[in-house]
Parts: sequence; structure tokens; C-alpha cells
Amino acid sequence: MTASPLLEYGRHPERGVTDAVTINEILDAERVCHVAFTVDGWPYAVPTVHARDGDRVLIHGSTLSRMLGELAGGVRVCVTVTAVDGIVCARSAFSHSLNYRSAMVFGVATPVRGTDEKMAALRVIVEHVLPGRWAEVRAPKASELKATEIVSLPLDTATAKVRRHGPVDAPADQRRRIWSGVLPFETRVGAPILVADDVADLPLPPSVRAALAG
Amino acid sequence: MTASPLLEYGRHPERGVTDAVTINEILDAERVCHVAFTVDGWPYAVPTVHARDGDRVLIHGSTLSRMLGELAGGVRVCVTVTAVDGIVCARSAFSHSLNYRSAMVFGVATPVRGTDEKMAALRVIVEHVLPGRWAEVRAPKASELKATEIVSLPLDTATAKVRRHGPVDAPADQRRRIWSGVLPFETRVGAPILVADDVADLPLPPSVRAALAG
Repeated sequence: MTASPLLEYGRHPERGVTDAVTINEILDAERVCHVAFTVDGWPYAVPTVHARDGDRVLIHGSTLSRMLGELAGGVRVCVTVTAVDGIVCARSAFSHSLNYRSAMVFGVATPVRGTDEKMAALRVIVEHVLPGRWAEVRAPKASELKATEIVSLPLDTATAKVRRHGPVDAPADQRRRIWSGVLPFETRVGAPILVADDVADLPLPPSVRAALAG
Repeated sequence: MTASPLLEYGRHPERGVTDAVTINEILDAERVCHVAFTVDGWPYAVPTVHARDGDRVLIHGSTLSRMLGELAGGVRVCVTVTAVDGIVCARSAFSHSLNYRSAMVFGVATPVRGTDEKMAALRVIVEHVLPGRWAEVRAPKASELKATEIVSLPLDTATAKVRRHGPVDAPADQRRRIWSGVLPFETRVGAPILVADDVADLPLPPSVRAALAG
């Protein structure tokens, strides 16, 4: 298997990066990936929770049963994680853009099997979604681990694209008296929504307090 | 072509929705989609800007040159738009989840051709990303439209999945004294980043003021 040639074909090859630090940062920055795979000649892009575990990425498969069934036989996937950072407002419509960071991992994912392996993988995923949460809650039972579907994909073949600069207008447009700049997106965790009366008197646990603190 | 059978296979078929209003709302709620397609037997999930235009979805293709070359010959795609709304904190690790809304559109996308058609399509995309911006900036030239690659996909075959409720713990777990609830994600536009000295004295335009007002 060779690295995807795709990103060399884009209009902005200068946005391509392949260093592991950048790729890892992007995978770690978001909680949801999109998994692409092909079934009966049709491509799918399915969102699911992921987490990086060292030099592999784990994908939670509770909503991907069909894909996972195929994966046991070795179906190829592309796992893409994208962070959208801002709107790039140029002086011309054509030069408008978005700032973003996107990592793509290609390969053949394999199911995580075995109680211990599944326990460890689920812990990595829960801790990625909400650091500190694992120790606060009831650990999975064997029956729950059996019902948990997680696949693992090595980070051997991965690439990323990053745009994180301001608008780039043509010189003739730079003289125009039109406002330009970047509108950054800021995502934060809002006030917790309590849905069970019986926990209303419990203090917020450390994991939630940390998430609220950003 | 039939609707994707995929979502019927998931662990949560009750999350599936197919009404056009919900699907349209999801497509309109996000600025970036992931486009899945298959090239030489490998699946890809590529992020790009999209916008709904009535009963079709437009996909900006500046970073998808290779895909677009294939599309001219009729390559199948899946366009997925996902909004991640919150972390669902249950009392057991197994029952943790995310609240989300995700729409998937399947079909064969076709390039938008012709100067007028491209102008209209680019306008829809720019107005989707930042409503009101089109009228504030220099309109595209013919040469820019020629360099703009946009594809169109009908919304004939689309489906969605939505989870927007609190944690669902087993009865035995509901008695545990463990905090549970939903941590909602809130995304807003932060203070504009001015990157050109010559616009520092210009007032923020209406499009930006509206985005800041949320």
C-alpha cells in the first residue's frame, strides 16, 4: 500500500503535511472522525467516535455494525479527522476560504478482540472524549465489552492538510477598501444539562469541571 | 439506486430519520462536509465546503481536483455532514455517548458548468459560509469562475441520524450516586483577527457583525 496520492492533486499542495506530530495533534483535537469505506460499489462516510492510542487510531463501532462485519474480512478504510478553525474573509469572493486542520489515515482496520484488549481500548476512547471520566463511572462488564465493537487502524499511512493563515488576495484587490480578516471559531463546553433528578445534588465531578474550564 | 441500507444495521436504528426538513437543517447547520468516494479500490473521506441549494447540495472542489476529474465520468459519492452537539455522561462507561446530528447524501455528483451556473453556485456557497458576504466583496471574474470547481448532488437519496437525549443507564446503574448529564458544545465566532493593516480602520461589515451576534 502506498500513501494516498490524493493530496498532491489539490489546488494547494503547500497545505500538505506529513509529520507525525501534526497528524497526532489533529487526531487528538477532535472527538469525531468520518470513516470512509466501500460496500457493494458505494462509498460511505460515517461519523463515529475515535481516539488515538499511540501509533494507532481506535474507532468506536456501535453504529458501524455493517462496516465492522466487512472489516473482519479486511475492508479498506480512510479515517478523516477535521477541525474547522475559522472563516477567511478576503476582498474577493473567489479568495474566501476556511482555516482548517485535517488528518487522513488510510489502511485496513482490524477488530479489537479479547476482553482485556477491549477494556483498554474503550478506556482510551472514553478518556479521549472526556479526560478523567473513566475513573468516575462504573467499569464495563464482560457482557458489555462483548457488545462493544472497536476497530484499530495503524498510523503507518497518514497525511494531513492545514490552512491557518489570513486571506490571500491578488495585489489589485489588496488596494480595495473592503474589510478582510479571519473569523475564528471557538468551541467550548456549555453549562451541563442535568437530566436525572437524583444527581442534581451531586457536585460536578473533576472530569466535568476540567471540561468546563476548557 | 436504493437508499443506503447501512443505517438499518446500526445498534440504534431508532436514531434514523429521513424527513427532508431534518436533513436540510443538518446540511444547513454546518459549513464543512466529508465527501466519500473510491479511487483505485481505496476509499477516501475528504473534507470540503458545501452548501445546500434547494433540493441539491453543492460541493466546493478546490481541494478535490482528482475526485472531480473522476466525477466527470460519474463517480459515486457519499456526502456526510455531522454536527457534534454534546457529550452524554452516563453512570457506566459503556453507556457514554455523544449527541449529534448527521446527514448522508448518496449519489452521482456532476460538475457545475457554465459561467452563469458557476457564478450562482459560488454565490450560494459563499452565502452559506457567511450570509451577506457576497454583496460586500468583489464578484468573481470569468477567469476565476473557470478555475472554480463545484459539483452538484441531488438530495434524492439521503438519510440522517440524530441523537439528542440524555444518558440512558440500566436501571441498576440509575441508583448509583454518580453524576450524569449532558455537556453541550457551544460554537461561536470569536473576535475577528485582522491580518491587513489597511483594513484596521474599516468598520466591521454587516456579514461579520451578524456572525458575531450569533
